[in-house]
Amino acid sequence: MAKQKKQPRPKAVTPKGFRDYFGSEVTRRQQMLAEIARIYHLYGFDALETSAVETVEALGKFLPDVDRPNEGVFAWEEDGDWLALRYDMTAPLARVAAQYRNDLPSPYRRYTMGPVWRNEKPGPGRFRQFYQCDADTVGSASMASDAEICAMLADVLEAVGIARGDYIVRVNNRKVLNGVMEVIGLGSDDKEAERGIVLRAIDKMDRLGEAGVRALLGEGRKDESGDFTKGAGLPDAAADVVLGFVSARRETGADTLARLSELVGESETGREGVDELSQIAKLLDAQGYGPDRIVVDPSVVRGLGYYTGPVYEAELTFEIADEQGRPRQFGSVAGGGRYDDLVKRFTGQEVPATGVSIGVDRLLAALTAKGRFDNLEDGPVVVTVMDRTRMADYQAMVGELRSAGIRAELYLGNPKNFGNQLKYADKRAAPIAVIQGEDEAARDVVQIKDLKLGAKLAAELSHEEWRDQPAQFECARSAMVDEIRKRLA
Amino acid sequence: MAKQKKQPRPKAVTPKGFRDYFGSEVTRRQQMLAEIARIYHLYGFDALETSAVETVEALGKFLPDVDRPNEGVFAWEEDGDWLALRYDMTAPLARVAAQYRNDLPSPYRRYTMGPVWRNEKPGPGRFRQFYQCDADTVGSASMASDAEICAMLADVLEAVGIARGDYIVRVNNRKVLNGVMEVIGLGSDDKEAERGIVLRAIDKMDRLGEAGVRALLGEGRKDESGDFTKGAGLPDAAADVVLGFVSARRETGADTLARLSELVGESETGREGVDELSQIAKLLDAQGYGPDRIVVDPSVVRGLGYYTGPVYEAELTFEIADEQGRPRQFGSVAGGGRYDDLVKRFTGQEVPATGVSIGVDRLLAALTAKGRFDNLEDGPVVVTVMDRTRMADYQAMVGELRSAGIRAELYLGNPKNFGNQLKYADKRAAPIAVIQGEDEAARDVVQIKDLKLGAKLAAELSHEEWRDQPAQFECARSAMVDEIRKRLA
Repeated sequence: MAKQKKQPRPKAVTPKGFRDYFGSEVTRRQQMLAEIARIYHLYGFDALETSAVETVEALGKFLPDVDRPNEGVFAWEEDGDWLALRYDMTAPLARVAAQYRNDLPSPYRRYTMGPVWRNEKPGPGRFRQFYQCDADTVGSASMASDAEICAMLADVLEAVGIARGDYIVRVNNRKVLNGVMEVIGLGSDDKEAERGIVLRAIDKMDRLGEAGVRALLGEGRKDESGDFTKGAGLPDAAADVVLGFVSARRETGADTLARLSELVGESETGREGVDELSQIAKLLDAQGYGPDRIVVDPSVVRGLGYYTGPVYEAELTFEIADEQGRPRQFGSVAGGGRYDDLVKRFTGQEVPATGVSIGVDRLLAALTAKGRFDNLEDGPVVVTVMDRTRMADYQAMVGELRSAGIRAELYLGNPKNFGNQLKYADKRAAPIAVIQGEDEAARDVVQIKDLKLGAKLAAELSHEEWRDQPAQFECARSAMVDEIRKRLA
Repeated sequence: MAKQKKQPRPKAVTPKGFRDYFGSEVTRRQQMLAEIARIYHLYGFDALETSAVETVEALGKFLPDVDRPNEGVFAWEEDGDWLALRYDMTAPLARVAAQYRNDLPSPYRRYTMGPVWRNEKPGPGRFRQFYQCDADTVGSASMASDAEICAMLADVLEAVGIARGDYIVRVNNRKVLNGVMEVIGLGSDDKEAERGIVLRAIDKMDRLGEAGVRALLGEGRKDESGDFTKGAGLPDAAADVVLGFVSARRETGADTLARLSELVGESETGREGVDELSQIAKLLDAQGYGPDRIVVDPSVVRGLGYYTGPVYEAELTFEIADEQGRPRQFGSVAGGGRYDDLVKRFTGQEVPATGVSIGVDRLLAALTAKGRFDNLEDGPVVVTVMDRTRMADYQAMVGELRSAGIRAELYLGNPKNFGNQLKYADKRAAPIAVIQGEDEAARDVVQIKDLKLGAKLAAELSHEEWRDQPAQFECARSAMVDEIRKRLA
């Protein structure tokens, strides 16, 4: 046997682009997802949890003849099969809808939430594992299913704590946009490149403004660095139609729809799109979802390919400070639309589907900014150990507190240095520490140290005043739970 | 360009050993995990969510010089690094405890729940992805931390719905067992093989009974198929000591501890183990956890290597029917113990730790068998579509039901065939269907069809009686929500 070499110690690090989530980072997300699930469930959507691992074949999107088909995904070979971590929730839904097509109800409403993985270059705030939270209806061509998802999205935002008025769900229809393409002569198959340029230009309206978009619709645009982006080459009149479409939103939904009707002219696709939007507007109206919650807005594009009919997007309209401290609108937190090729890859049958995906991290950031989770940040009451022979007594105190529903813990480290115990309580963000030394035990009392108040006083008062320690007081052992409950209230 | 070959359709299947979870399979687990998390949190444990992917180096346990170090795990190479899906929650905890050792509170109490992956041969009921739910305390050598976890385990079981008396938490200590090994002359380093045989023999007590275990402790044992298993070669007197240890449990904890003291004799390790068990018993006593919940039981072994001190196990004591319909005890649903080499691999420093892992699927199966989730199985109220021009009216009904907190959905399929709508409601396990045709709309009423009652009547009554359809009735449109609420109560 060869002599065993001494192994170097392993490095304690996460793989590049991955991270850990601690304490309230986890519970905040859980609480938010539970609220979302409650609304999805109320709407009749059923939970689905697929496994993290799929066959590369089922995930699709990959070339089958390259040696390592893992562009964008984490993939590996296992007994001759290529497996991969799911990169979104839609591809597994497609597989499930095909695999269980004879057993699932049709239409099938399902929601799902969980991590997805992307083998992409990580960046600041961009990780290779993140959460998605989707709801889709598979097997319904009815506009009622799109309207339902828009209404549900509004309900979800209010349920997690976004006030009405702080968000808006905007609805558009790809067919209207396709109608506009037809009107400006970009409707045919050989114009796909130009249509792409137009779509990308519209998508940049927020950033470039009308002049920038107009340049991209025409000859092209030189940016501040001098780089030139080739345009779609549209004549001015055609660019006017496109820009007219993007800015077609009017005061009322009816006026917006009338304006869109004008823009799509005789295009059959375009008229179909306007009709679908009208149906959605009517259905939402019947349920009382007015323009304070959901509006028809032709500037919504939602990415490039993929969608075939209604598209929708939820935006938070309140302002937060950006990295430079300047106020800006929070922006989009969810989006989706109708897509029809979901199951076809597997079965050959076209199955209509529509669905929404909530950006879990963005919505969570918004709720955190709104102070929604401030109550979650408190640590447990810490019972300190003055006399290690009396651990059972301290344990009993902790037990009483927990029985009263108060989060509490015993100091479990080496109790020799009492300062370390208070440092520990501080690190735990403990609101209160309980102390009982020999003297207190003899008198059957405890010291209650209000650490939160103490910190506040220390920040506000002079050292002399602080030394009086008004934040610490003594009470009978039997009154401990009540006194702590009062302080925490 | 080469001519593109027509691709065969992808197969819609999960990879071998993986499965999907639908509806209440997901929500039941979520509900149970939320209850467990509530108790963990109450005990001062903090949530931790590590990523599914770790470096193979951090996970450890693998030979670094083989070409593909993925024995038992799913692993792949990424830019020269080997990555793998976590196979348990302890290895990532070790990495976190080392990586953040200067920032985490010490002791660090953490809980975590989520899927883990094993690259093992799948079998009936054995999948390659499954849930674990762990709580560990890192950095405390105090027996109070082991006692706390035993108490918490009892609280967790009651919180998820296991009645007191239907479970027992059993505690033992590895040092007592090691003391017994010393007493019988198997204490030295060169006797590891024999110790392994003894441990495996003890672990089989449930299955083989005392005679079988005695044979394995002695010369060996021939099983029913004629296969021979070599024994530990202990003389009878030594086998008596081992069997005396396994059956040392007495009526009271104090008597059990006294018996263990006798068995370990002068072994220092053994006496340390008995002392640790006494400390745990005293701490639990002080908190009122009597032998109806937690007992000292020397027959608990918990696997082979790994543990260094206290070990504990939670067992459900009620009977369920096995595959052959025979009653048998449900058995173990959680287990854990103290282990000390957790962080040492990374930092060289020994860090004491103790923790428990709950078998999520087994506990869930137990709760399901106990009928804990029966209320979760009902589907939504289904509002049917008799007249597709009145979708907005039906949508409004659904909206009213949801606003009243009643799970409800509109039929979104093609409404032409009404029979299909009732079949759909059936597949959805809908308790109630709402029907409003032209006639009902004109009279401003709805038909309410109690599908649950209908199914019950159909099973119990003759066809003639059933035809009277007492399970269907008419009510005013304005009374719809109230009537449905009454029926669902």
